[in-house]
Amino acid sequence: MDPQEEQTKKPSKKDLAKAERLRRKQELAAASAAAAGVSSVSIDETDPLASNYGDIPLIELQSKSIASEKWTEIGKLGEKLKDESVLVRGRVHSIRAVSKKMVFVVVREKGCTVQCVLTVKPEKISLQMVKFVTNLNKESFVDVYGVVSVPENALKATTQQVEIQVSKIYCVNKALPTLPINIEDAARSESEIEAGLQAGEQFVRVNQDTRLNNRVLDLRTPANQGIFRIQYQVEKVFRRFLEDEGFVGIHTPKLMGGSSEGGSAVFRLQYKGGVPACLAQSPQLHKQMSICGDFGRVFEVGPVFRAEDSFTHRHLCEFTGLDVEMEIKQHYSEVMDIVDRLFVAMFDDLKQNCQKQLEAVGKQYPFEPLEYLPKTLRLTFQEGVQMLKEAGVEVDPLGDLNTEAERRLGQLVFEKYKTQFYILHRYPLAVRPFYTMPCPDDNAYSNSFDVFIRGEEIISGAQRVHVPEFLEERAKSCGIDVKSISTYIDSFRYGAPPHGGFGVGLERVVMLYCNLNNIRKTSLFPRDPQRIAP
Amino acid sequence: MDPQEEQTKKPSKKDLAKAERLRRKQELAAASAAAAGVSSVSIDETDPLASNYGDIPLIELQSKSIASEKWTEIGKLGEKLKDESVLVRGRVHSIRAVSKKMVFVVVREKGCTVQCVLTVKPEKISLQMVKFVTNLNKESFVDVYGVVSVPENALKATTQQVEIQVSKIYCVNKALPTLPINIEDAARSESEIEAGLQAGEQFVRVNQDTRLNNRVLDLRTPANQGIFRIQYQVEKVFRRFLEDEGFVGIHTPKLMGGSSEGGSAVFRLQYKGGVPACLAQSPQLHKQMSICGDFGRVFEVGPVFRAEDSFTHRHLCEFTGLDVEMEIKQHYSEVMDIVDRLFVAMFDDLKQNCQKQLEAVGKQYPFEPLEYLPKTLRLTFQEGVQMLKEAGVEVDPLGDLNTEAERRLGQLVFEKYKTQFYILHRYPLAVRPFYTMPCPDDNAYSNSFDVFIRGEEIISGAQRVHVPEFLEERAKSCGIDVKSISTYIDSFRYGAPPHGGFGVGLERVVMLYCNLNNIRKTSLFPRDPQRIAP
Repeated sequence: MDPQEEQTKKPSKKDLAKAERLRRKQELAAASAAAAGVSSVSIDETDPLASNYGDIPLIELQSKSIASEKWTEIGKLGEKLKDESVLVRGRVHSIRAVSKKMVFVVVREKGCTVQCVLTVKPEKISLQMVKFVTNLNKESFVDVYGVVSVPENALKATTQQVEIQVSKIYCVNKALPTLPINIEDAARSESEIEAGLQAGEQFVRVNQDTRLNNRVLDLRTPANQGIFRIQYQVEKVFRRFLEDEGFVGIHTPKLMGGSSEGGSAVFRLQYKGGVPACLAQSPQLHKQMSICGDFGRVFEVGPVFRAEDSFTHRHLCEFTGLDVEMEIKQHYSEVMDIVDRLFVAMFDDLKQNCQKQLEAVGKQYPFEPLEYLPKTLRLTFQEGVQMLKEAGVEVDPLGDLNTEAERRLGQLVFEKYKTQFYILHRYPLAVRPFYTMPCPDDNAYSNSFDVFIRGEEIISGAQRVHVPEFLEERAKSCGIDVKSISTYIDSFRYGAPPHGGFGVGLERVVMLYCNLNNIRKTSLFPRDPQRIAP
Repeated sequence: MDPQEEQTKKPSKKDLAKAERLRRKQELAAASAAAAGVSSVSIDETDPLASNYGDIPLIELQSKSIASEKWTEIGKLGEKLKDESVLVRGRVHSIRAVSKKMVFVVVREKGCTVQCVLTVKPEKISLQMVKFVTNLNKESFVDVYGVVSVPENALKATTQQVEIQVSKIYCVNKALPTLPINIEDAARSESEIEAGLQAGEQFVRVNQDTRLNNRVLDLRTPANQGIFRIQYQVEKVFRRFLEDEGFVGIHTPKLMGGSSEGGSAVFRLQYKGGVPACLAQSPQLHKQMSICGDFGRVFEVGPVFRAEDSFTHRHLCEFTGLDVEMEIKQHYSEVMDIVDRLFVAMFDDLKQNCQKQLEAVGKQYPFEPLEYLPKTLRLTFQEGVQMLKEAGVEVDPLGDLNTEAERRLGQLVFEKYKTQFYILHRYPLAVRPFYTMPCPDDNAYSNSFDVFIRGEEIISGAQRVHVPEFLEERAKSCGIDVKSISTYIDSFRYGAPPHGGFGVGLERVVMLYCNLNNIRKTSLFPRDPQRIAP
């Protein structure tokens, strides 16, 4: 068909479209103007310097022109830029009007700040311009043009060496005048609050729930900026180390048919067609299946769902699991070797590459750097029980350690071996999942391990039973209905190599590394039994 | 308390524990023996060479001793190892008994194979040993000791240059004698099946459902080994490119309160305390909140849940989303620049680093390499509509393109610009989500884009509306109840920078890059409206 012909055939449809388009355009123009109106301020139109400041209208921010200017990151400002003209975009962190003729505005980007100075000067800075800046709402975004200068005395901003002598300043986006959290309050340490009290100043203490209810504001503190950059660094080192060791990253499904093993604490839902389903409590089944699928060594970073009613400082209903599974040639120590080298590499890396972030965290939440050995200490469970016994703590030699005993053992290990990171292995079989391989020399124990940071369990791992008949036996003797886990068991019937692995909670690694008191601090938008928002 | 005293005080408890321990030990020993029995074969005990072959008892694989031997990966065998003694562990891929005195066994590891040869020799290889190997079940794991030799004629194994002259061979783990899928059948290409038919040989064609029902076997084919290694490489390049560009990886929650925006296709569940919840259909809300939380540039790799009844070759109910969100200084082309450079870097990298894997995929599923330009082509939606019109395809200039029109446009673009990867931008506003920023010069269009590979949409991105009042207006005019999305809108009230981003489906990238016909081929354990297992 001739396209021209087609075109002329349907004039009515085209006309309709055109009319509709016009209608929409008018509607949107009105809405756009209304929106712009909300963020406009009254500027003295008689000021000959009026073009040097003011609100940028929305239309200019709707991709009107391709960026021709160069923005400098506030975190990258320094003395070597002295006397250079720069343009920065950031938030109004604080404003201090010295007089009607002079104002200091601290501008913040990604937790880093710089002080910007405006002083009335003929033909450069008008009284109205100083007033405009003085009246800006905190947390609003501004574009600041100016020249970098090096002041004589140190400043209260994180980028302390330099300040900006402002020539132009525009408001990009306006925050509400009253915020539910003041960032300066949210960023204050306990000791600063105490010191304030002693000096007669009552600072606002922002509690955990208020922070989480207003997470978008809370995340802006230097400590939180640090925490989540450290968190990604942990993941990055985890991935790179394992990639180099021949592991391949996988993605296993989070939607599972039926109810997952250990069914009590799962989130249940209806799948398509009303089929009962639940959310994966761990990638255990599928990572083992991937080993049976010949990937040799696999890892996964992904969400893990636990519907437990745990109201503790270290439990979440959704967290990020770092999971590893690998073929074993002869001994589960091959898995512990990976744990050992991986975490030592991680701790070394953090020290080297996250210094600024660790300092930012430590400034608000002071902590002692983690003590660890270049070759990670390994103790057997029996040795641990013996150490506790010698310290007067009696525990069941074939039971599990409770949190208190774990902490005590952590102290004893630190005193004796000078490390806050160690592996405890050969756990009693009875306290491990049914798929854990028993020890060859003593069936009361198992080829399993836990790893501790500062006395808290952080990793759990083991050799798995890879022989389906033996797996059935183990399930039965643990009182598990073999039928309910037949898919799991069947995946080992077509040839399965000896294998093992471990799982780590990303949030817990960061929490314990930085010795933070609550796991909610290391989850971007935490989910616990009482919180599913924001 | 004196620990010694404590110890003597509780003799009865200890005795009980000891008794229980003994009972368990006996029970497990019995189970272990039973399990070992299942996998044992009758070996001629009178054979003086009996120690050179046989089944490894389970107890030996329970981490009895730390690995002292060195295993060589089959994929790393080559001519430079000629005359060297090696030990390999792999699966019995196929067995060809030439006579009672000679047998060839092809051993496979991670999709790579090597032929192993046993010929009866006095004091080295017995008749019984050849018989043992001949009777091994396919897919069983074996440890093979032998010397690398270079045969005169090429072999049918992937590691074609060398074979192993076997001295010892042990079965590590036994597969069932009959498998639901034969790996050789599962690995055959359509053209091999056709060629077989013409030659009078009827090969088994393994259909998609049988493959997925037995995914643990299906994953073992060289093509599947290749697909999932390519998939991880895609993710790896995605991460590294963005890390280098100052992005930080984040993890947003998958459990959402209420019902997500666009509520029809969400999986609903009850959260703790009976609170209604659903699974995130995308990290849209939280990645934008992270921008408001001052992370500047973020990305996420994580599961995305869609309860849609889409029975197509390219839809899944759960897939891996690659999501990006970033501050924009002036123009949404800043986002397209990232897409452009990221994907060109990815395609270049795959060509360079996944050659073997791409060949393995292509051998079973032949495809032409993707044609792309060093600087990605950008067309406006209007230009695309015009190209279609000129080719005789009339489409609504303010509507969306249907799949057919997208494919046709892909062909036209390929003919004119010699690229199968391009960006189409400035989509009509009416066909994009309410949070899409309208164009500044024409409100009928939006600052948005889609990206296509081989004529199929793979990426969707845009500048977002960052002004809360305007966002409300847009929601209302799209008929959305503003109250239902108040959390979303409120997050922009405390200062929000102009920003934009995009989302990609990992499985779709691999599917289209390799021109595969079904997205289930690129999902490790796919979930669709009719499948939630294994």
